[in-house]
Amino acid sequence: MTFQNALRLSLDSPTHAICVVGMELTLDISGCAPTNCESFTIRGSPRVLIHLSSAVITGEEGGVVWRPLMQPTEALVRMVSPSPTINEDKVLISYYSPDKEVPMATAVLFLTGIEVSLEADIYRDGQMDMPSDKQAKKRWVWGPNGWGAILFVVCNPSNAEETDDQPSSEMAPKEIQDLSQMTLIVEGPDQILKDYRLVLHTSEEEAKKARVYWSQKTLPSLFVPVLGPDKPFYELDPLKNRGKKTFYIEAMEFPSATFSGLISFSVSLVEKALDKSLPELPLYKDTVVFRVAPCIFTPNTQVPLEIYLCKELQLQGFVDTVTKLSEKSNVQMATVYEDPSRQGKWLQDEMAFCYTQAPQKTSFLVLDTPRVPSLDELPMKYSLGPGLGYLIHPAKDHRVASLDSIGNLMVSPPVKAQGKTYPLGRVLIGGSYYPSEDSRNMSRELLDFVYAQQVQAPVELFSDWLMTGHVDEFLCFVPVNDTNDDGKGFRLLLASPSACFELFEQKQKEGHQDVTLFEGIRAEQLFSNGREVRTISQILADKTLRKQNDYVERCINLNRTLLKKELGLVDKDIIAIPQLFCLEQLTNVPSSQQTSKLFARPYFPNMLQMIVLDKNLGIPKPFGPRIKGICCLEEAVCGLLEPLGLKCTFIDDFDCYLTNMGDACSCAIVKRVPFAFKWWKMIP
Amino acid sequence: MTFQNALRLSLDSPTHAICVVGMELTLDISGCAPTNCESFTIRGSPRVLIHLSSAVITGEEGGVVWRPLMQPTEALVRMVSPSPTINEDKVLISYYSPDKEVPMATAVLFLTGIEVSLEADIYRDGQMDMPSDKQAKKRWVWGPNGWGAILFVVCNPSNAEETDDQPSSEMAPKEIQDLSQMTLIVEGPDQILKDYRLVLHTSEEEAKKARVYWSQKTLPSLFVPVLGPDKPFYELDPLKNRGKKTFYIEAMEFPSATFSGLISFSVSLVEKALDKSLPELPLYKDTVVFRVAPCIFTPNTQVPLEIYLCKELQLQGFVDTVTKLSEKSNVQMATVYEDPSRQGKWLQDEMAFCYTQAPQKTSFLVLDTPRVPSLDELPMKYSLGPGLGYLIHPAKDHRVASLDSIGNLMVSPPVKAQGKTYPLGRVLIGGSYYPSEDSRNMSRELLDFVYAQQVQAPVELFSDWLMTGHVDEFLCFVPVNDTNDDGKGFRLLLASPSACFELFEQKQKEGHQDVTLFEGIRAEQLFSNGREVRTISQILADKTLRKQNDYVERCINLNRTLLKKELGLVDKDIIAIPQLFCLEQLTNVPSSQQTSKLFARPYFPNMLQMIVLDKNLGIPKPFGPRIKGICCLEEAVCGLLEPLGLKCTFIDDFDCYLTNMGDACSCAIVKRVPFAFKWWKMIP
Repeated sequence: MTFQNALRLSLDSPTHAICVVGMELTLDISGCAPTNCESFTIRGSPRVLIHLSSAVITGEEGGVVWRPLMQPTEALVRMVSPSPTINEDKVLISYYSPDKEVPMATAVLFLTGIEVSLEADIYRDGQMDMPSDKQAKKRWVWGPNGWGAILFVVCNPSNAEETDDQPSSEMAPKEIQDLSQMTLIVEGPDQILKDYRLVLHTSEEEAKKARVYWSQKTLPSLFVPVLGPDKPFYELDPLKNRGKKTFYIEAMEFPSATFSGLISFSVSLVEKALDKSLPELPLYKDTVVFRVAPCIFTPNTQVPLEIYLCKELQLQGFVDTVTKLSEKSNVQMATVYEDPSRQGKWLQDEMAFCYTQAPQKTSFLVLDTPRVPSLDELPMKYSLGPGLGYLIHPAKDHRVASLDSIGNLMVSPPVKAQGKTYPLGRVLIGGSYYPSEDSRNMSRELLDFVYAQQVQAPVELFSDWLMTGHVDEFLCFVPVNDTNDDGKGFRLLLASPSACFELFEQKQKEGHQDVTLFEGIRAEQLFSNGREVRTISQILADKTLRKQNDYVERCINLNRTLLKKELGLVDKDIIAIPQLFCLEQLTNVPSSQQTSKLFARPYFPNMLQMIVLDKNLGIPKPFGPRIKGICCLEEAVCGLLEPLGLKCTFIDDFDCYLTNMGDACSCAIVKRVPFAFKWWKMIP
Repeated sequence: MTFQNALRLSLDSPTHAICVVGMELTLDISGCAPTNCESFTIRGSPRVLIHLSSAVITGEEGGVVWRPLMQPTEALVRMVSPSPTINEDKVLISYYSPDKEVPMATAVLFLTGIEVSLEADIYRDGQMDMPSDKQAKKRWVWGPNGWGAILFVVCNPSNAEETDDQPSSEMAPKEIQDLSQMTLIVEGPDQILKDYRLVLHTSEEEAKKARVYWSQKTLPSLFVPVLGPDKPFYELDPLKNRGKKTFYIEAMEFPSATFSGLISFSVSLVEKALDKSLPELPLYKDTVVFRVAPCIFTPNTQVPLEIYLCKELQLQGFVDTVTKLSEKSNVQMATVYEDPSRQGKWLQDEMAFCYTQAPQKTSFLVLDTPRVPSLDELPMKYSLGPGLGYLIHPAKDHRVASLDSIGNLMVSPPVKAQGKTYPLGRVLIGGSYYPSEDSRNMSRELLDFVYAQQVQAPVELFSDWLMTGHVDEFLCFVPVNDTNDDGKGFRLLLASPSACFELFEQKQKEGHQDVTLFEGIRAEQLFSNGREVRTISQILADKTLRKQNDYVERCINLNRTLLKKELGLVDKDIIAIPQLFCLEQLTNVPSSQQTSKLFARPYFPNMLQMIVLDKNLGIPKPFGPRIKGICCLEEAVCGLLEPLGLKCTFIDDFDCYLTNMGDACSCAIVKRVPFAFKWWKMIP
């Protein structure tokens, strides 16, 4: 009994062979043909499929084919299912001389079919597939006509504390049924299987990226990892493991600069060395490739699900307003613990809700970009709701960490630009326009991570002119219901100093030149923030303020050009929101790092830093000039946004904002409905 | 004079703007239109191109377009070349009321065109291209219809000694004219240019991968690096650098697991801060992307150019034979210094000739895979010819380094398999079939390097059954002239123990059972190698030898199946070369690492380890049974190969071979003609 890919036949005695379902045996037909033989017939038993040149002979129909014999003649033999007993299947080749009807001789090949197969849900329909094309599962193809199995990362908050050296648990995660499955199918007669070993394996590199769990017969409720870091292979006894066995796979890392996201698993069939003087011999390998699902960001045009707020904040008015807003939008309100050691209130700067998705499961996670790389200082994760993942992205030794924050990482709604569709939008990242001695950029690690997710191709914007360096200080997306009218379903809001000056000029023309900005704010609040109550005339007459805002306007225009090109926007997709800025020296760095370079800060609370809860917008209250009891800035913004079906609520967060250089709205992060579009259906 | 992407016009006074050639200005036409105005005309000066909805108005033909005015109306304005003087170009918009022929008012936009452009040979025709599609140079596209500029790595042997900390020289390499060029074009009126700065830049990461050299006016023959490691940006004065300036770029690294090979360079135009209280403002960026040419291996079916040999070897007979062989093939013979401390004679195991190619230059290099990671022990590179590159690939801390050697990295000729074309062949790499405690594989670093080159998609074979673990011990490609007959132009030779046994059985049948193997070899030579003079009968009767060779045959058959599938071969492309093996314990590792596992070694000198010099083959002399004065193994091999137009010369390297566990043929490496096919024309 041999296990060979190429078989020679004999007229003297039958040949015996083992054939793994899916494997091809080459049969040398002419080699043993008697001299004078000029033609032959070939036939197989029901489980055998014979390819002879272009003809396919299926044993099921009792097929037989008659052919002239040429030198050399080969047939390819495959088995469609395993044999119930040894030598159960066969192929008969009968050789004929030109003038006789009875064959001169007949060669017999006895076959024993066994099955060793690794299957996964490559068509993402919840079924373990056994496609007719055995090669399909070895490739992973993007796009609407693509295929390939998917793994996803389980980001348990508790996992974030594990080090590589000591995994906290050898057990599977509780969510075992949510993990991606892989099925090993082993069938065949006992006498055959007992001579073989099975090895389930991956490469050493890939083993670091995923854990494969298995429940053994002895204790079916216990799932133990069989492959994982430092365990690239696992031995299985084919006799004890016949039938279908299910493995559960958990990815441990999202794609990154050094990890493409692809992980292959194989099962190898190895012939035991019956003669101890010989090494074992590998015979057959079946492989299936998985791709780790990316981490996907949601734009604020997606419907909100939950809003996370720091209640400890000394701003009950703010919290109340957001609570009301969330009730309007039917959003569940959650509270996040505030860590006093951590400037914790800028939730939005520090964390973002993301999701990751496999066909069987969508899970949310919080991506945290700590300013402080030590995990001990991050108890915040413990306050996250149950079932919510947590991923910390450590920032290694980076000069200016401000641009690493999530506030500087925004996602556009789905767009189409330069002939390419981005069904999950594009990530917008702020940085310097060109490198220089004092330029600030997002850390390479975080940038690489975002690029490596592939499905939300980043656009790099110019934000280094802002003190925080965050793109969310000058741009924002809001949802609108215009997709029926061939619209894009959203508007891009851009901060516009010139729109603000125009508004003030108009109010001056109307005779309101003496109305003041910052009315109703306590004098000491203003003083501590370097602001003072000023009239419209005074603001319009301030040449320095005008000059500084011209500079800001040009910085925003540079981004406007980039955004129009990279997101395929036209002018009517963009709304200019009146907003003034002023230039100051960097204050959010140690004094030793301060330079004379000036950076932009909002002059009054930044209306672009709004909380978007579906059509309800929570906008930082600008404290603009009040004319007939109405703030003209609020009126202007409502005039721009309410005709689009948006509802504006202005939130008083002045104190928080100017004193701490960040809007209170940054204290809120919003969990949103994932995209309906499945990431694997796109072509990155 | 402003530099804005979006311009508003005024009827009161002309607007002035600067426009970089290639940039688009958005002109708000309706904003300043007088009330009652219902239509307008627009015209530009010769260097101006106006896009209005779908119409394009070129100033050159004195074009003008008449349009009804709607709210809002915008035009896109571009310049096709720089303006010779300030305000030299203009756009006129005249506004008309319904009943008058004379315009009600006219808005004037004065334009000053400047040019700031970075060009490279993106169509690989030796020209610095200025394609009409300004976006083209920002992308790099593979394939026959692709484009993109190319950099190449200059691997000077002296560079290999540089450490990151101290580059040996600030000067450009001598081959400056061979480097890839990049042209900076700066034009425009003095009064404008003086207000700007130019910054040539790349990212910090990319700056580690390439050096950009520039010859300054003061000393034109001196080329200094302006960008490179730790120098991601370089300032230029646009006034002093107007016109065309050429930069020369040298890549410093081949693509690798952590380097895609793509490097972008940009020039940014920055407006100087005329008012010191404001920051500088970036205005415009032009970017061109390069791809670093891969390191390409040549299969031995390519025509040889030079053969490198260790003459110090105590085998004058071998050297003489190879010399004669090289004369037959018109190959220049070169001598390589032998380093006595380095088992230096296995040149082929240690080094391979590769080439790298840009449109302007093809350069050869030696890829060295040291067993010893210290550079001091590698003086061999000094013996390489002039103009020959040298790249050392350090093996970091790898358990068994034997599989890292070049003997285990072979290239197939161009093939087509499973619907995909591999015009530069595929790299064949040996390893274990599945991982286990004692499996041996090529180091991840070297494997990643080979994969990262992209153009010769690797095939991983099973070679761990061999003592050396090298694929060149059981397979070899030889060139044949059959492409006219629809052939592939090559044959794959595979070692075949069964072919050898069949030959010996046939000789036994013919009555030569008492003829001996190893005739003519000195007794002490045989003894020291564990061999003895044996007759054909004795060999055929040796059951252990037969069993061991059955095992080897099955190992080779496993690879045969893989090779047929991955290289698209059929049986007639493969020739079985009679070769016997025997199994022994591992001897090429320290005794502490030895196990009881047996590995295969050739039983007689390995005919597969031949030197292929076009149609002349230098084959290790097998010392097979001599019948009528002719070695029957040599006769069989000649019978297989000479009908294909190949000439076999058998080289006596017995002593070298068996004593040192490696063929003398491994002492020779061959520099070969690069592929005619250009790597950038393929789609990996």
